[in-house]
Parts: sequence; C-alpha cells; structure tokens
Amino acid sequence: MAVYTEVSDEELSAFAAQYDLGAVLSCKGIAEGVENSNFLLVTATGPYILTLYEKRTRREDLPFFLGLMEHLSEHGVDCPLPVHARDGQALRELCGRPAVIVTFLKGMWPRRIQPQHCAQLGEALARLHLAGAGFDRRRENALSLPGWQELFVKCADRTDEVRGGLRDMLAAELDDLAAHWPRDLPSGVIHADLFPDNVFFSGDRLSGLIDFYFACNDFLAYDIAICMNAWCFEADGAFNATKARLLLTHYQRVRPLSAEELKALPRLCRGSAVRFLLTRLYDWLNHPPGAFVRPKDPLEYLRKLRFHQSVRGIGDYGLDVTP
Amino acid sequence: MAVYTEVSDEELSAFAAQYDLGAVLSCKGIAEGVENSNFLLVTATGPYILTLYEKRTRREDLPFFLGLMEHLSEHGVDCPLPVHARDGQALRELCGRPAVIVTFLKGMWPRRIQPQHCAQLGEALARLHLAGAGFDRRRENALSLPGWQELFVKCADRTDEVRGGLRDMLAAELDDLAAHWPRDLPSGVIHADLFPDNVFFSGDRLSGLIDFYFACNDFLAYDIAICMNAWCFEADGAFNATKARLLLTHYQRVRPLSAEELKALPRLCRGSAVRFLLTRLYDWLNHPPGAFVRPKDPLEYLRKLRFHQSVRGIGDYGLDVTP
Repeated sequence: MAVYTEVSDEELSAFAAQYDLGAVLSCKGIAEGVENSNFLLVTATGPYILTLYEKRTRREDLPFFLGLMEHLSEHGVDCPLPVHARDGQALRELCGRPAVIVTFLKGMWPRRIQPQHCAQLGEALARLHLAGAGFDRRRENALSLPGWQELFVKCADRTDEVRGGLRDMLAAELDDLAAHWPRDLPSGVIHADLFPDNVFFSGDRLSGLIDFYFACNDFLAYDIAICMNAWCFEADGAFNATKARLLLTHYQRVRPLSAEELKALPRLCRGSAVRFLLTRLYDWLNHPPGAFVRPKDPLEYLRKLRFHQSVRGIGDYGLDVTP
Repeated sequence: MAVYTEVSDEELSAFAAQYDLGAVLSCKGIAEGVENSNFLLVTATGPYILTLYEKRTRREDLPFFLGLMEHLSEHGVDCPLPVHARDGQALRELCGRPAVIVTFLKGMWPRRIQPQHCAQLGEALARLHLAGAGFDRRRENALSLPGWQELFVKCADRTDEVRGGLRDMLAAELDDLAAHWPRDLPSGVIHADLFPDNVFFSGDRLSGLIDFYFACNDFLAYDIAICMNAWCFEADGAFNATKARLLLTHYQRVRPLSAEELKALPRLCRGSAVRFLLTRLYDWLNHPPGAFVRPKDPLEYLRKLRFHQSVRGIGDYGLDVTP
C-alpha cells in the first residue's frame, strides 16, 4: 500500500503541462508497491502511471533504471516506457521528489500462481536477460554478498527476537556463502525483484514486466534463483517442483544454461533466500509502530533457505539430470 | 488507504463477464477511502470504479445508496452511476462481499481548499438537496442525536485518555443538544459526509460528488453544517468566514434557507462537530495497534465544536444579518 506523498491538483496540473499528454482527467493513488508513491494518471490521451521516488530509491540510480526500461522496450521486452516531456526530459521533479510518467501496461499480476505462469515467466526472464546485453550503463548489486553481510551486522543483536537460534544459523550460512559463492558465471542486467506482483498477465498471456528499481548487474542465473523463491513455493511452504521445472525449461528454450550455472543454482537459491530474509528481517526490526506498510514475514524466507540447504542437486528442482 | 480484500484475476474475470463492459485490461487498488475496498477497473470500454463493501457498510442499506445514485444521476447531479450487469442487477457479489461497478467520474478532489471551491460546493449541495426530493426510499440517520449518545456511552470511560475534561464537556454538550436540537426543519436526503475528498473538480469546475455511503434522511441544513466543518476551517484551526459566506450564499442561490434554518445553523454545526468528534474518538480508542488505516485526530473536531459554542449568531459565519 503505497502513497507517501500527497500531490495537489495545482502541482499536478503544472507538472502535466510540461508533457504532450492532454489535460489531466483524474489521478488516483495506487495501493500497490512499497518503495515509491504510484498514481494512476488518466489524461485526455489515456492512462499512465506517475511515480514519485521516495527516499529509499537513490536519485543517482534513476538514469540507470529509466534508461534500462527504454533499452528493454526498444529490444522487444514489454515494460513501462518513460514518457518524455516537451523538453526531452523523462526524469523531472514533483513535490520535491524525482518523478516520472511511464506508459500504462495492461494486465494484472497473478494472485494464484499456476504452473503455466511459471513457464511464461521463465521465457520472459530469459528474453529480458538477452535484451539487456547491449545496455551500456552498469549498476552494482547493492544487495549481494557484501550487502547481506552489512545488513546482518545491523540486525545481529536483535535477530533472535524473531526466532531463537536465527543469528547463529545466519552467521554460518553467510560464512558458507562467502566461501562458495560463484565467481565466474555469465553476468548481465538482472531484474532482481521479479515477484508475482511485478509480472502482469492479460488473460492467459504474460503482458509485461514492471518495477525495475532493483535492477543491477549480477549473475543472470541469480535472477532465476530469485524467481524460484518467489514463484515456486506454495502458501504452506512446500516447494512445487513442477513450477520450478517449467520455469527452468522454458527459460532454457530462450537461453540455455551452462553446466556451471545449473550446478550453482542451489547455492544461488540459498543466497537469494538469505537476501530476502535479511531485508525483511531488517524491516521487521526497524519499522515504526503503526507504520503505513505492514512488514513482510522474514521467516517465510528462513523456510525457503532451509529447503535449499537440503537440496542435493538440481534434480530436486524438477530438472532431468541425465546428461 | 483502503484495499481490504484481494481480488484474484480469475474471480475478477468471472465477475466482469456478467457485464457488457468488454475485456478487463487492468484492475488496481485505489489508496483512498477508509470504509470499503475500491479498485480502478479498466476494461475495453474505458475506466470504471469497482467497490467491494466491507463490514462497516450494512448490506441492507445498499439498495438505498445505489438507488439514490441512480435517482440523483437521472436528476442532473454528477455522481457515479451503478452499472447494471446483463441480468439487470447492479448489486452483485465478489469475494464474498457485496460488490458494484460504477461509472468513472473525472476530476480530482481539492487538496488546498480555495474560497471558489466552497462557492461551487454550496451550489452543488443545494442541487443535491433539490434532486433528492423525489427519491422514494428512506434511511434514518444512524449518526444523529441517539447515535451520538450511544457512541458516547461506549467511549465515556476512556474519553479522558484523549484529553482531560473531555468526558464532562461532551456530556454537557450532548445534554444541551438534546434540549435544543431542532425538531421541525425542512428534511430530505442528505449526503452526510461531503468532505473535500468526496467532491471532484476538473480544472476550476466542480465535476461531481462521490461516496454516498452515509446518505440518509435528515434536516437539509444539517448537511450544510457538516460541510461548514469540513471545508471552512484552516489547517491551523481558524474558521474562514469568507469560505462559509460563499458556501452559504451560493447554496441559497439554488435553495434559499428559511429564517428557522439560518437560526438553527450554529446548533447544527455543534451537532455535526460532536458527530465527527465522537466517531473519531471511537475509532481512536478502538483501532488495533498497527492497523491499516491511521485514525483521524478527534481533537480537530473538539476545536471546531468550541468555535461553534462561541458563535453569537449567523453573522459569525460571514452572513449579512440585516433583514
């Protein structure tokens, strides 16, 4: 549920007058997303999304995010396209915050994940990875191993408030990840946050990807690991190997994975589980009482981590391991 | 911020298929309103609002509310119009809740109230009162004097937690209202909740009224009193007599007020201040910790009540009192 900034009608009219979008007919805050303020803006030329970037999105990263959306869109990925004002600029300011209008993407994110959603997700993710190849900006992943270690230091003293023994378990897992994290897998631009609410379907077909505000350069297969955690577990915590198999096989129809990538997958899944466990743990321990946004349960990712720790190989992810 | 119910894409598709609105292109929760869940639904034929009625809206009242919107719309009031499905029904069920699709009203509610907003509000309110005359359903105002007394009983023990002395002050005011509440003013359908976020403007012009879910039968002038409290005080608590004068004079251009109505206005304003003070007090004392919706400050209405207690006559509301 996210609208942190109240935009007045006067401010909005002055802002919209810088674009060739026609008169503003309506602007309503959208109850989705947690990082930024999003509005559904309807003008004489149709619906758009207006985003105001709140403090957790760093201003210096915005050219990377907006440039990436333009690059991907030019290369056939269905995603929101930043709209340029008459002066050519897409990134402007509104209510003291960086602000952008992007095109409206039809579709809804799936509330109940079906296996077919995972098949289409796999294909779209591989296309995203291929399309990102020619993008000339770089952004380090602030939430990779060094970032996790930093977060853990900030949380360590209070980690056991959430679950007894969690601190020692996480310390051991971080040591293990530091010792065994892959060094040399195919890299490129990854989405890094491709949860179901960032993937739209129109009817049965995937209609586009949104929310590129964690995108960065990292191992491409790490993006798959994030999706496996976000899409292939049931509400009761059970891993759904059918969904994982469809995700992986449909990904490979577009971009085959190397033997090294497949071998690294369980470790990448553990790292991805630790990443979301730690950011959720941090938010859980640090959200103000009565906060606007209800923090997500960190322990959901502890259960996912435990599953990946128990995996013996990619056969457990539903893949056929015969050569 | 209100989306209490998560609607899945499958449920929505099945629901929308009962209407002649074309395929669903998008459906996003709206971060406005506090009582019900609202979604901006975009279909092949344009934007609509989908509302799911949550537990505070009584199911048996819905035919009154929806019938009123249709009646008002037929009589020239710009307001959302319930959309009928192919079977003729407007009121349906979705996710176990009563649900309705209404037409989309262009415009935005004014974040900074200008005097001209109050002038147009006065005119629109009077037109609403005239248009309501022929509506043949009735709904008692559950939040009039007996309702306030009930709410006070529920809050009394804890009232002084909010402000020392508030309990005695409210008890005295309720006694005073019971002794002096008008008995015989012109009555009809009132909106009863016409706060700025329920009045849309498109550019400089009032484009429509929304949210009829407190509408009921009561004194018409009581609706004016609600608007005076909601529109004519500044953020610092000061009463703006210019705004009140414009509200009242523009109302009277459409529906002149009788001498009795004008004379009763200070008392009606006190009653309206008590009504919102008590409902906010109740919500303040009873909201669960970490609740979704931040409760509104009851003391804002204590300050308004104090102002109206100090009023010597309608001259203090900016009206010319010479005969």
